Amino acid sequence: MPEKNIKSAFAADTARSVQVQAPATIANLVCGFDVLGLALNDPFDVMTIRRTSDPGIRIVHTDDFGLPTVPEQNVAGVALLEMLQEVDGGPGLEITVDKRIKPGSGLGSSAASAAGAVVAANELLGNIFSKADLVRFAMAGEKLASGVKHADNISPAIYGGITLIRSIFPLDIVSLEAPPLYVTVVHPQIEVKTSDAREILRKEVLLKNAIRQWGNIAGLVAGFQKGDYELIGRSLEDVIIEPVRSMLIPGFEEVKKGSLQAGALGGGISGSGPSLFMLCRSKETALGVERVMKKVYDATGLAYHTYVTTVNGTGIRIMPT
Amino acid sequence: MPEKNIKSAFAADTARSVQVQAPATIANLVCGFDVLGLALNDPFDVMTIRRTSDPGIRIVHTDDFGLPTVPEQNVAGVALLEMLQEVDGGPGLEITVDKRIKPGSGLGSSAASAAGAVVAANELLGNIFSKADLVRFAMAGEKLASGVKHADNISPAIYGGITLIRSIFPLDIVSLEAPPLYVTVVHPQIEVKTSDAREILRKEVLLKNAIRQWGNIAGLVAGFQKGDYELIGRSLEDVIIEPVRSMLIPGFEEVKKGSLQAGALGGGISGSGPSLFMLCRSKETALGVERVMKKVYDATGLAYHTYVTTVNGTGIRIMPT
Repeated sequence: MPEKNIKSAFAADTARSVQVQAPATIANLVCGFDVLGLALNDPFDVMTIRRTSDPGIRIVHTDDFGLPTVPEQNVAGVALLEMLQEVDGGPGLEITVDKRIKPGSGLGSSAASAAGAVVAANELLGNIFSKADLVRFAMAGEKLASGVKHADNISPAIYGGITLIRSIFPLDIVSLEAPPLYVTVVHPQIEVKTSDAREILRKEVLLKNAIRQWGNIAGLVAGFQKGDYELIGRSLEDVIIEPVRSMLIPGFEEVKKGSLQAGALGGGISGSGPSLFMLCRSKETALGVERVMKKVYDATGLAYHTYVTTVNGTGIRIMPT
Repeated sequence: MPEKNIKSAFAADTARSVQVQAPATIANLVCGFDVLGLALNDPFDVMTIRRTSDPGIRIVHTDDFGLPTVPEQNVAGVALLEMLQEVDGGPGLEITVDKRIKPGSGLGSSAASAAGAVVAANELLGNIFSKADLVRFAMAGEKLASGVKHADNISPAIYGGITLIRSIFPLDIVSLEAPPLYVTVVHPQIEVKTSDAREILRKEVLLKNAIRQWGNIAGLVAGFQKGDYELIGRSLEDVIIEPVRSMLIPGFEEVKKGSLQAGALGGGISGSGPSLFMLCRSKETALGVERVMKKVYDATGLAYHTYVTTVNGTGIRIMPT
């Protein structure tokens, strides 16, 4: 952890209210467990933060998810509290959340809340913190949500595009280039808790599988940087996490097989699931993959939602007021 | 394995004799165990291959290493035999080897022999095979040398530069970009057999270490592709293999610590050792690192040899005749 460097808030000319769109994100990207993430253009949460004359943090939800509003129990609240520890004379803040990324979807809902809150508050305070600082604050929210300080959803939400967390301690975030990509997502509405999805993983892995995995992540990063779609596709293979976690997600095999047949480059579980995603080279293919996903989940009778979207190169957007 | 596709030899206008320089290579590159490799401009073997009227393979060594000359027991011989299985009416071949890369140095001596032989023979046959084919043949030599079909030395020897073996089965070789790099190598003249160096590795690794490793290899590939020297340096970390293997190499810690202090980006064990290498941004730094290495090994009293060189972007060179 870098030493805390207390900053002054309230630059005279900053806004009194800021609205942001905080995007859904896909962590892991198949072979990059805990280190890769990608921001989506759809769905996103809408959050508005404003200064209040009363001190402290107040959280208002305009959605129906029944999330906690006590700051210490809310991921956005915890992230803001972490941030305010490094602000001298920090203001009172009221944050209004219109959550559109379903909690528990595997699409970085908690990361959107935590990252959106600190990005909005930083804008309100006159941008006194760096992006790396904001990731650090938002990780406190992830720790509340999943028990682990991870940054694979938060980093792409804040930096945009595709990010690599080379290291958490010390924090080392690398933005990767990528060619244009379409992303098709299906969220089958079953519950997979991140903490449960971690529990079922073995603490040890075979060296030969680890080697295969680091060959794949190296190939994926090279494919992104080179804009080589075929290499991206070949590298989207996970021999460690997916064989275990996919068992928790009905329809996984059918979606994967059908999507590849429909021309997807590859894909798998988004974060710890249950959402599944597929990367595609064209919109036409992405729509074909969506049809595959719909067919699979229509047959299961499970409720589900699909998205056909693109990579969000900006990350959290500050909206004009 | 791709299906064998027997080719005809003896294009009428091909040469009767070909000389090649087959470079030393550094496998693993710290965090890329079994998947990354880099070709050096120095040292290299010189090999001459010529057609003979008698069938079969004849191997002549002009060096003093006492390597086997029976084709079935010689890495170059085995690689050529593998190749000739796919050649209809293959010629008799005599190969003369002036080996300058010491066997057992950890600098890809066996790979240089195997790869050099098949590249030279392919030239003699009118370039009927692809680079991927040549890697496949040369791997038979590596299997003889170390018991395992690995390609992390052979691929950079044949393709040049820095290569990623994303997968061995099926073979998937990716050439990586890289900014200019100087490489300082020290070969302390102790014996570390590749097979022994594999024996001491655990068959299982902690998932958390595997994650750290694939974060590093992803960072290293991104650093190479972006030409980001600092990222390359930060990513040259190995939490799995180096802690075990470095114990076999006296002077390892002193060389590493001193080299980093002298400005090296990073480095570690070359292949399975005992050679150590350091990547540097400038020739001046590379020479400073060489002084560190000399100081360490002068103090131990071990015989050693150093090289200050650069990345060989060409791979095996066909020499003008």
